Order: sequence, then structure tokens, then C-alpha cells
Amino acid sequence: MTALNIVGFPNQSLPLSIMEAIIKGGADKAATAGVTIVGGHSITDSASKYGLAVTGFVEPGKIITKSGAKPGDRLVLTKPLGVGVVTTGIDHKLVREDLVGRVTDIMLTLNRRAAEIMLEVGVSACTDVTGYGLLGHLREIVTASGVGARVEAAGVPVIPETEELVRAGAVPGGTHNNYRYLREAVQWDPALSNEMRLILCDPQTSGGLLMVVPRERKDCLLAALRKDPEVVLAEEIGEIVEEPGVISVTT
Amino acid sequence: MTALNIVGFPNQSLPLSIMEAIIKGGADKAATAGVTIVGGHSITDSASKYGLAVTGFVEPGKIITKSGAKPGDRLVLTKPLGVGVVTTGIDHKLVREDLVGRVTDIMLTLNRRAAEIMLEVGVSACTDVTGYGLLGHLREIVTASGVGARVEAAGVPVIPETEELVRAGAVPGGTHNNYRYLREAVQWDPALSNEMRLILCDPQTSGGLLMVVPRERKDCLLAALRKDPEVVLAEEIGEIVEEPGVISVTT
Repeated sequence: MTALNIVGFPNQSLPLSIMEAIIKGGADKAATAGVTIVGGHSITDSASKYGLAVTGFVEPGKIITKSGAKPGDRLVLTKPLGVGVVTTGIDHKLVREDLVGRVTDIMLTLNRRAAEIMLEVGVSACTDVTGYGLLGHLREIVTASGVGARVEAAGVPVIPETEELVRAGAVPGGTHNNYRYLREAVQWDPALSNEMRLILCDPQTSGGLLMVVPRERKDCLLAALRKDPEVVLAEEIGEIVEEPGVISVTT
Repeated sequence: MTALNIVGFPNQSLPLSIMEAIIKGGADKAATAGVTIVGGHSITDSASKYGLAVTGFVEPGKIITKSGAKPGDRLVLTKPLGVGVVTTGIDHKLVREDLVGRVTDIMLTLNRRAAEIMLEVGVSACTDVTGYGLLGHLREIVTASGVGARVEAAGVPVIPETEELVRAGAVPGGTHNNYRYLREAVQWDPALSNEMRLILCDPQTSGGLLMVVPRERKDCLLAALRKDPEVVLAEEIGEIVEEPGVISVTT
């Protein structure tokens, strides 16, 4: 419903026109999402920061939480991983212009339509994939639901250049932090590459939705998501298992 | 009604127990104010930052804005100035323990009761005094209302040690910025000390309310504010005049 701009900006070292463009971009997306920006706060900062503090209303009976996952449910992801690595690659000047465009388009895509479709089909649980990476957010689901999960790495969508960028060293600090933090919760298939392990822990800016869907509704969900032009993709990436708190990753 | 914690914290250089204490302090005050904290966002940062993004509801007929000030109205302030200078003095280790306690008590005092009393009595306009200092926020009122203002410096409440701290150099960068920014809008009485000019521009953390009250209700407002134990003080500091956009400051 409403949002407040939260802005930190190094106005000694960057022109204010950049801040203006950031705020205008956020306002455009908020308008598309049906959110009214009603104010905000800005401070002088050493690095630029921008976010929206958003308030909405939800019908109590329609809340999809992280706690409803059940053994046998399938996992569906709606955006490819790799945004953290690619944007770090941009900072390191390792990324070509067309990939800058592709990763920007992914980040610009709202999860709104994917969420609407999910509500229509009906799912067990859901979260968005952001700072803790795919496995970090999956871990919140398995912990809240008292279940485990098996991720099939081969099925996880990844921006194609990501592995190469990881090998070139474009790995955000947060990726390593997530990887370390998840060490005890994740059982890695020994055959899985180090690059892929890091990618599964990579923090995503404006990442997709990780949905947990009952097996019998999975095909219906995938079909509905895939035919919507505002959904980046929809891939099945694994399933919920019984063993509580354990995430196993197969190749 | 609801609030989100917005936190930046240098977790490499400060113990997390400090962040915990900051968040707990905010939560306690929010509870007192009747606000429910429903979530938030934290990032690793070079310096610690904390704020609440707050959402509330207001009855359309009961909104007190900055645009209702009329010539002849009186100005009332509900907290003393000097918080920016004193907290900078604390950073510079120029401040004794008892003043730390006093300035903390001032910042801990909510404007809630002052606002409730103001609504009961009825005022023309109001704003809170924060980052732009008293004169910066007064300027927003005179601009929005198409009027001018005269501030009587001798009547402005100031934390007693503030002038001495200004002379010792404990002046926030924001104070100088506000002073420069206001140069063209303010007519200073030549007899006014440099210290007092800066204090009138000093950014306040958790500053008081600057109320604009019709002359005939001023005594009633002052009496009601002064007898409430949750209001720091209530002082008459000047009046609204006709000349649009001009703020004159007398001794």
C-alpha cells in the first residue's frame, strides 16, 4: 500500500543527479506495483544505499508462510541465480554490456504476477530469495516447517556466465559468509563443483520466489507461471523430505 | 501503528550486543508509543545507523500541516535546543556525566503527549524540530503558509551548557550546513552572538514540536503543556508576521 524511501548518499563524491535517478527508478517500480510512496528519509553516507520500507495489508486466511512445507512437496524457483556474482563482476569490470542488460532485466522483474499465480494455484509455503541465497532461504523454510529438503543442482536455473565469473573471482563477500554459515545444515554431493556450491549460496538482489507446492499441483503451477510474460522462468529444483533441518544437494 | 527497524551496523568493529541494545531501546519506546514493530532490515555498515520506518493512520479532518500559519499567531517550542551540539560534545569528550543524563532524558521524551494536548487546544500549524534545526523547520512553515516569522532569541529555550560547547568547537557539520543554507532567508539582529545563531540552526535528534497557535489560545496551550509531566517544557519564542518567506531573529 505505502512505502518510504530510505536513502544514504555520498553527496561529496557523486552528483545528486544519480540519487535523483535512483529515487525516480524506485518510484516508477512502486507505481507499477500499486504502492504509493508517502515520504522517506535521506542521509549523507560513505556509500550509496537505497531501499523502500513498505507497508501492506494481508487477509489473515490468505497468508502463505515459511512453515507449511510437507514431505513430498516439490520446490519451484522463478528466477535464475547468479545476480550477486554478476553484479560483483560488473564492479570488477568483467562483464559485457549485453549481460549487464540481461541481469538488469531480471532484477527489474517484479514477483507480483508470480505471487498472484501462486495464490490462485495454492502452495504449501513460499519465500523470496534475497540476501541469504537460495539455500539460506530454503533453510528458513525447512526450519519453520520441521522438514528437510533435497535440491537437484542440475535443475537449478543459473545465469549462464555465472560459473565463469566465480572462477574469475567475482564472488561477493556475502556469498562466502552464507556458504560458511550453512556448512552444518547442508550435505553436499562430493561430485558438486565448488562454483555451484557458491552459486547456491549467492545473495540475490530482487531474487525470485522459492515456492513449495504439493506434488499434484506442481504441473499446474509450472504451466501457469511459464505462460505469463511477467514471470522470468519457472523451474523445478527439488523436493521436501522428512529428515528435519537437513538440506542435501545432489548433482 | 506499525514500524520497521532500519539498521546499519559495523559488526567487524563493534560487538553485536550494542546493536541488540539499540534495537531493544527502540522497541521499548515503540511499545510506549503504541507502535508495533513488525519487521525490519539490517546491513553491515561503516558506522552504526538506526531508525524506524513508521506507518500510521490519520483522520483527514484532523491533520495539522505546515501550511496553516497566520500573521499574529504565536510560536511555541516544547524542548530546549542544543542536542546536536551536546552530542557532538560527548563525541569530543567535553561533556560531564550529568549533562549526558540530561540530554538523554530530553531525547527519550516522546512528543506524544505534547501532540495530544495540541490537538485538544487547537493550533494553526506544527512541525517537529529535527535535522534542519529550529530555523530550518520554521522556514518550512513560513514557506508552506506564505507568511514570515519573527523569533525572539532571548525566549528560545537552550540546554545551558550549549553556548560554552559551541565556543569549545563542538559544532556538528550539519549545524554549519543549515546556517549556510538559511543565510538568505534569515535576517539576523547584528547584536546576536555567533553562538546563538548556530544554536538556532543546530540539528536536533528527537527534537520538540514547534507549534503555531492563534494568539487567543496561546495561554491555554502553554498552561496545558506546562502542567503535563511528559512534556519537557513549553516556551513562547516568537510570532508569525505578514512578510512572506522572511524570518527575522531579534535578541
